[in-house]
Amino acid sequence: MPNRPRARELGINIGRATPGTRNAITDVPGVRVGHVTLIEGEGPLRIGEGPVRTGVTAILPPGDNWYDHPVEAGHFIFNGSGTVAGLSLIDEFGRIETPVLLTNSLSVGTVYEGIVRFMVKHIFGPRGRVPWFNPVVGETSDASMNDIGGLHVRPEHAVEAIEKATGWPVAEGNVGGGTGMRALGYKAGIGTASRVMEIDGEESTLGVLVQSNFGGRLTIKGVDIGQELAREGVESESEGNSIMIIVATDFPLSNRLLNRLAKRATIGMARAGSSGGHGSGDYVIAFSTTQRTPGAMPVSRKAIAEDEGRINGLFERVAEATEEAIINSLFKAETVTDPRGETWEAVPVDLVAEILRSKGLIDPST
Amino acid sequence: MPNRPRARELGINIGRATPGTRNAITDVPGVRVGHVTLIEGEGPLRIGEGPVRTGVTAILPPGDNWYDHPVEAGHFIFNGSGTVAGLSLIDEFGRIETPVLLTNSLSVGTVYEGIVRFMVKHIFGPRGRVPWFNPVVGETSDASMNDIGGLHVRPEHAVEAIEKATGWPVAEGNVGGGTGMRALGYKAGIGTASRVMEIDGEESTLGVLVQSNFGGRLTIKGVDIGQELAREGVESESEGNSIMIIVATDFPLSNRLLNRLAKRATIGMARAGSSGGHGSGDYVIAFSTTQRTPGAMPVSRKAIAEDEGRINGLFERVAEATEEAIINSLFKAETVTDPRGETWEAVPVDLVAEILRSKGLIDPST
Amino acid sequence: MPNRPRARELGINIGRATPGTRNAITDVPGVRVGHVTLIEGEGPLRIGEGPVRTGVTAILPPGDNWYDHPVEAGHFIFNGSGTVAGLSLIDEFGRIETPVLLTNSLSVGTVYEGIVRFMVKHIFGPRGRVPWFNPVVGETSDASMNDIGGLHVRPEHAVEAIEKATGWPVAEGNVGGGTGMRALGYKAGIGTASRVMEIDGEESTLGVLVQSNFGGRLTIKGVDIGQELAREGVESESEGNSIMIIVATDFPLSNRLLNRLAKRATIGMARAGSSGGHGSGDYVIAFSTTQRTPGAMPVSRKAIAEDEGRINGLFERVAEATEEAIINSLFKAETVTDPRGETWEAVPVDLVAEILRSKGLIDPST
Amino acid sequence: MPNRPRARELGINIGRATPGTRNAITDVPGVRVGHVTLIEGEGPLRIGEGPVRTGVTAILPPGDNWYDHPVEAGHFIFNGSGTVAGLSLIDEFGRIETPVLLTNSLSVGTVYEGIVRFMVKHIFGPRGRVPWFNPVVGETSDASMNDIGGLHVRPEHAVEAIEKATGWPVAEGNVGGGTGMRALGYKAGIGTASRVMEIDGEESTLGVLVQSNFGGRLTIKGVDIGQELAREGVESESEGNSIMIIVATDFPLSNRLLNRLAKRATIGMARAGSSGGHGSGDYVIAFSTTQRTPGAMPVSRKAIAEDEGRINGLFERVAEATEEAIINSLFKAETVTDPRGETWEAVPVDLVAEILRSKGLIDPST
Repeated sequence: MPNRPRARELGINIGRATPGTRNAITDVPGVRVGHVTLIEGEGPLRIGEGPVRTGVTAILPPGDNWYDHPVEAGHFIFNGSGTVAGLSLIDEFGRIETPVLLTNSLSVGTVYEGIVRFMVKHIFGPRGRVPWFNPVVGETSDASMNDIGGLHVRPEHAVEAIEKATGWPVAEGNVGGGTGMRALGYKAGIGTASRVMEIDGEESTLGVLVQSNFGGRLTIKGVDIGQELAREGVESESEGNSIMIIVATDFPLSNRLLNRLAKRATIGMARAGSSGGHGSGDYVIAFSTTQRTPGAMPVSRKAIAEDEGRINGLFERVAEATEEAIINSLFKAETVTDPRGETWEAVPVDLVAEILRSKGLIDPST
Repeated sequence: MPNRPRARELGINIGRATPGTRNAITDVPGVRVGHVTLIEGEGPLRIGEGPVRTGVTAILPPGDNWYDHPVEAGHFIFNGSGTVAGLSLIDEFGRIETPVLLTNSLSVGTVYEGIVRFMVKHIFGPRGRVPWFNPVVGETSDASMNDIGGLHVRPEHAVEAIEKATGWPVAEGNVGGGTGMRALGYKAGIGTASRVMEIDGEESTLGVLVQSNFGGRLTIKGVDIGQELAREGVESESEGNSIMIIVATDFPLSNRLLNRLAKRATIGMARAGSSGGHGSGDYVIAFSTTQRTPGAMPVSRKAIAEDEGRINGLFERVAEATEEAIINSLFKAETVTDPRGETWEAVPVDLVAEILRSKGLIDPST
Repeated sequence: MPNRPRARELGINIGRATPGTRNAITDVPGVRVGHVTLIEGEGPLRIGEGPVRTGVTAILPPGDNWYDHPVEAGHFIFNGSGTVAGLSLIDEFGRIETPVLLTNSLSVGTVYEGIVRFMVKHIFGPRGRVPWFNPVVGETSDASMNDIGGLHVRPEHAVEAIEKATGWPVAEGNVGGGTGMRALGYKAGIGTASRVMEIDGEESTLGVLVQSNFGGRLTIKGVDIGQELAREGVESESEGNSIMIIVATDFPLSNRLLNRLAKRATIGMARAGSSGGHGSGDYVIAFSTTQRTPGAMPVSRKAIAEDEGRINGLFERVAEATEEAIINSLFKAETVTDPRGETWEAVPVDLVAEILRSKGLIDPST
Repeated sequence: MPNRPRARELGINIGRATPGTRNAITDVPGVRVGHVTLIEGEGPLRIGEGPVRTGVTAILPPGDNWYDHPVEAGHFIFNGSGTVAGLSLIDEFGRIETPVLLTNSLSVGTVYEGIVRFMVKHIFGPRGRVPWFNPVVGETSDASMNDIGGLHVRPEHAVEAIEKATGWPVAEGNVGGGTGMRALGYKAGIGTASRVMEIDGEESTLGVLVQSNFGGRLTIKGVDIGQELAREGVESESEGNSIMIIVATDFPLSNRLLNRLAKRATIGMARAGSSGGHGSGDYVIAFSTTQRTPGAMPVSRKAIAEDEGRINGLFERVAEATEEAIINSLFKAETVTDPRGETWEAVPVDLVAEILRSKGLIDPST
């Protein structure tokens, strides 16, 4: 089943706003995504040996010198049961100064080292400068699918993910940091979506990329899909925990507005069926590509006017895009078998589409 | 000058409360400290080659299974210009479930990996359990003294720091994570101090360990030492940034009270002369060793009554112990030369003692 | 239409957990609720004259000396576009030391004064004590229905709401602070619901009371009711903003856990259809009645063990109870006309029940 | 003793930066301050009767329509043991939309009502607009000097303080909200100071106003004045709690930078001798007058470049100005007698100056 469809290809259009050209985080000009996927070995888990089902996903803000041209950033922690490096700098300086990388829970350290190696080699070394910067690394756990304790993600995999990053295509499902993930009872992984909005005659874009690994019951357009599928004899088990949500935009937003935007991504998460569980590390990081000003001059910054229409437009779009990115992270993921021999079913997309069609919830123009 | 004195050995007694037996963080029963110091090479800096002047310091909560018996924890960020892994778990779960390690700014990742290797090998592996936990790692920058971009701290150094940890002695000055640090114009590094308090007939202890690297003007008992020494012809340059402050206690404090305690450590930092600079990552992590209850049972927790006397007693002690730990981190540090050939002077302790004596600020019983 | 039904009376059972006896916040032993409703005048609005459509709602923690026996408390701000007095004390001391009162946006001050008068008269005066305490007052805006600038709520109304508070009955809909409110396109007001959970053989209760005034599209059990009613020719306008959510419980929860619980109430808010709008002040305050220990003694506190089962059980219940309390706040509200002559329709409950029945979403045992 | 001197008039120059013309918060163009002081009755305290020793202080951002032209704002809570209305709007919208008023702890409500009356009458009423806004009110407790439970501050006193506000003179000491306050063992009240800084050829100003009521030991230029005065036979008692610190500036700072600035004010507070006590409500509110843009247009905002020099310059100035404002709040306060007949001594300024002169700490040019 190599070419599973995205939600929108089946006429499942989440919300009312228009997606960008590719319906991906890379619709935001200059943003790139790279994956390194590690799959090796079979059979029962032996710590240090395998099997390996994990990876790294890199999201790159525009340009190639993120330290001198950082992006304005914000974040929100819905549940802090996990580790994300780099958040206090976002609070204090309102910025991100490296690529943002996602991996498994115990590989935050090695991926952090990979970012350091890349930045020292390409940015600080060539300029003869003493290096200092704060990598951003997030994680969700693939401990049920992958030999997480074996630390198979190495610094060079992080470097490779940065180097391979491109605007298009953006692979979804069982790739990169999403390789060993499961969400809402089904195999999950990486998903993305985007929305555009016109403000004062100028169109800007907001894109979301998720690494889904959280529990709850899959809900699409308000329909409890888990319950519906159970009636059809398809069983699912709601296991998993944690989600990383990365929001990129070229709207001119300050740290404060990006914090607010990050918070609204959790509305999309709730609508997709999250139970907001105790052990689920649920983090949102948001950045704006418009504020890439060097730190050493007096600056005049463009800012969005904060009226209801504009801000609510942004809030709706981040919730919609997050919801759709989560659905894509399940739709694009494929069935796999874990080290205990258990099958992690992909969500049966055709059946889901049929259920939604029977309820009049499919866009007929598809 | 192998045996530079601590402040109190010179009669410089900070505050009014009584220190613990060793005047160290390890006065808190069960707490251990381990250092790995890396010194190699001379001459000008070449990224990847050296010279190496760095290290790792490990602070261990009691016991050897921190995951199943975590300590209650809190924290405060005075200035978030840096990276500390593990803070969101402290907010969410109120606990620390690994040792706390300190190193240089770019080695957070490798030290994180070291903690993971140690925990997988000694705690999860032997029990056949799937590993998941959140390492706590803090940093300050030794980029002016050490080839920080060369990443000379390796995961095995973190493991070694944990393994070597002991209750006594606790080395101070140019050791462990403090090897390449400078604060308030002088060579600095690791320092520690403690205070005891009797509540309802029971004596408990609060200890502080700092890794000092921050700017400002050295102030002792309110005396602007920098200014006084300048009159004596001793020049100092206020360079440096960041401080990591670790507070341990066996008072029965909740996450909320530990957050409050952590905030008051910054009063000691301000009194020692910090200018609270823009680029100084100033973090405080506090934990209580009394709340090591397994998560799976209904529990009855001892809690301190929150009256003015008790809480103010704790607040004064954490400020005093932090101030004294900072002074010790300078007094015990020794003069070194950096890769540019510049000398980083140790603070002239005898001259300082003389200045304070002339002002009647030395305890005459010494 | 004096006796509009609550959701559950129509077989609309939100979630899976069991409600308490009365399905109200007062199922938590000792908790009482009091309303003062102010309705006066007709016709177009003249500031200072009317018409008056407003009020005060008081939620009382157990007992009658809240200062000496405060409840442990936590809170969460989803959107801070509003004013709630008393939140910093909840963060710092983890407690609430007065009743919690709800009113309209501009009457926070007069209601604050009413709480002060009540506390001075009944608690501090009789004991000859110098008064000091921090009232908790929240608000949502009834500016479209009520002469909010006329400040018709007076301190004595707050006192009266406290004095009238009782365990049962708890009026819902157009009463107290909810008198002039609108939510999700319909007339709204006060609503309540509760859930019980057994832990280690002991049953405890969690109750929610809301003052609903927020925008979005009414959603029940995932069904977009607004859309469905539009097909039936019933128009609704999504206007309004803000919600106050008060959570009470007799589970033994600390400030940190109450903060976490408060956050999960917003999942219920999202499920009910909130758009999380820019101008909507969305606040959750949570308190536990089990921690009413005087401040002046060493204490041993009962605490819940934080395993997945227990905490997720609490999280699900607070989301469910919030969702149901919001639905009740609409179902129990009655159609009214505003000063501009516009009718604010109550939600047509029978039609809603029919829609849900046609989808198999009504509990057949009703 | 009607004309007690300010610190600087005695040659006590705090820090190195230059004050503004008046060394007051009103050096920031457009900022005005108004006091209403209530003094009535003598003898022992009877709740509801007196004696009355209290008041209101209003700090006005520029202009007279703060709702349509709000100032950008930030804040920091060092200790949340108190009540400040309006903080969540500062976090969410980054702005203040009313004057900022200070009063005694139990009068937050009446002063809030006064702001509402003023805003409705002068801003919303004349424009025929439905009122909605969020007053900012802070407090410290004068319960030992004033019949605080009698609520003698009425809404009209708040209105009067706003109406009387002027750029100069700014009374200090026993006036307005500071009338019944005590700090660091001496009678205290209102104090103010300012600093200028040139950035890129343009001079801007930062001003601070404090209402001092906190405990600790008076420290000036590092000298423990309490200890020195005790040697001279002057006894002081360190009683009191809480401080409100208001920072105004015309540097172009965002909410995030104003939050950071607010935090550094506490360094000045620590240097002046604060013990950061358990029950001391210590709040800082900061606003910038440069960002008064209407909400309804796309805007281009001037922003300060965040390099070390500029930001550290701001940080030093806010700490210095806070320290000096606190000293002025004591120096300008006069000796009074409380309802129990106890005398609250003003700090003996001449003796203090003599002590500092003997240590070479007085500016000889004075």
